[in-house]
Amino acid sequence: MPYLQIAPHSINLYYEDHGHLDSYPLILIHPIGGNVLIWEYEISLLLKNGFRIIAYEIRGHHRTNMGKSNAYAMQDLADDLGALLTHLDIRRCTIIGHSIGGIIGSIYAAQNPEKVDGLVLINSSPKKFQDFDLEKHFKTRAIAITRGIEALAEHKLKSFDEFKDLAKEKRYSDFFKNVFTKTSVGGFVAATVALYSIPEDAARKLRMSGCRVLAIVGSDDSAFIRLSKETKEMMPEMELKVIEGSDHWVIIEKPKEMYDILMGFLGKIIGVSKS
Amino acid sequence: MPYLQIAPHSINLYYEDHGHLDSYPLILIHPIGGNVLIWEYEISLLLKNGFRIIAYEIRGHHRTNMGKSNAYAMQDLADDLGALLTHLDIRRCTIIGHSIGGIIGSIYAAQNPEKVDGLVLINSSPKKFQDFDLEKHFKTRAIAITRGIEALAEHKLKSFDEFKDLAKEKRYSDFFKNVFTKTSVGGFVAATVALYSIPEDAARKLRMSGCRVLAIVGSDDSAFIRLSKETKEMMPEMELKVIEGSDHWVIIEKPKEMYDILMGFLGKIIGVSKS
Repeated sequence: MPYLQIAPHSINLYYEDHGHLDSYPLILIHPIGGNVLIWEYEISLLLKNGFRIIAYEIRGHHRTNMGKSNAYAMQDLADDLGALLTHLDIRRCTIIGHSIGGIIGSIYAAQNPEKVDGLVLINSSPKKFQDFDLEKHFKTRAIAITRGIEALAEHKLKSFDEFKDLAKEKRYSDFFKNVFTKTSVGGFVAATVALYSIPEDAARKLRMSGCRVLAIVGSDDSAFIRLSKETKEMMPEMELKVIEGSDHWVIIEKPKEMYDILMGFLGKIIGVSKS
Repeated sequence: MPYLQIAPHSINLYYEDHGHLDSYPLILIHPIGGNVLIWEYEISLLLKNGFRIIAYEIRGHHRTNMGKSNAYAMQDLADDLGALLTHLDIRRCTIIGHSIGGIIGSIYAAQNPEKVDGLVLINSSPKKFQDFDLEKHFKTRAIAITRGIEALAEHKLKSFDEFKDLAKEKRYSDFFKNVFTKTSVGGFVAATVALYSIPEDAARKLRMSGCRVLAIVGSDDSAFIRLSKETKEMMPEMELKVIEGSDHWVIIEKPKEMYDILMGFLGKIIGVSKS
């Protein structure tokens, strides 16, 4: 599987490029603590529907290194996405991003309206967080730094706010642990700090871009339920779909429901009907 | 000179502790790219006036390492200050902070009102930055990462916005380069990213704390002139002193003027008259 070298920063960005080069490209961007493995189900289903699928890993996550940067702002992650799309000569696409992945997609789409037809925000939003949304990461960073990424995965599964649905089934929690523990401590720390640097005007610029936006959010993910509703007020054209009985890790918990909603949206964007 | 080990994070925090243990303590916190050397003039003058002076270096700056954290939020830097004051058993003090140093002091004072009598903000403010205030660091971080800290010092001296007063005199620019180039690239990158994480309510909480606040700002430092005026509107009790013909590096450019203002404020706080 290939890597894109982003030379000045010594970053080797891992990506996968599936399907035909002349098919419509979907770009998948994972959440903090995720990586390409998290999209396993979506990749196989979307490929059957004739899409080209490009999935990559953000800095410090699984096979992509941190490079020389020990910290980064959201804009740096959006620039990495831009470098990948330029490298692959992708001129138009739809971006599907989970959590930080959707934020990266929002920033990129707002800055490159000619390149992005559609944006799917999965438990994500272009709106800045409130301070209290990010305060849980004082603790998660301390656990990662002092006790390691496995201890953090265990802690997360026990913290009831974000994981009460995920922790219900062992196959979900095992899958989560397998994916999450491939994240480097440095990648986790840098990415959670980067969440402070979401541009203030990202939502306004995204609306102005004319990009079609779908937000999918788990009913039990309180922060993103609030942010998604606030985003919907600012961008009434945005479709908002709430998946009941799911929390932040809706991709793992409700793949079928998510897939159906996704295909409905993609059908409207590029005229592909669900097969 | 001693180090405080902040064990879980493997940080060795460098600090100096001058003067008598029973004298009133002043805590000096340097700006990004600074370190204890920048206070040379102030330390000698304040010592003559009978203060105890504690000056330390923030993570990734000169003699303080980054530890295991490759990135950090402002709250982590405020926690480091708290660890140092606890270690030294400082029960009441006045904090003098330049730029990020004043932000660290603001957060700490707001959270520990019983410990901080006074706060001097030198080209600093407890208010969150606007995105455009921080966008210059997309470039400064890229220069540091790709070309090194010396190249960044040269770039800064040539960038007219922040350095037009400093660059006028070779002794100032030489002093700046000597101090600045002791910063690690990692420390510079992490600190500039941390600026996004200033708590939204820091100014309000600081006002509620009852801590006396003096802001000193160079007339040509446009970002901090604006932020200081906005802070003054929120905290009318705050004293605001503008030093004409100076920019962000007022400590280097106008030490005498700054010292006079500082002594006037300290005299009011602890009844020490200027000698």
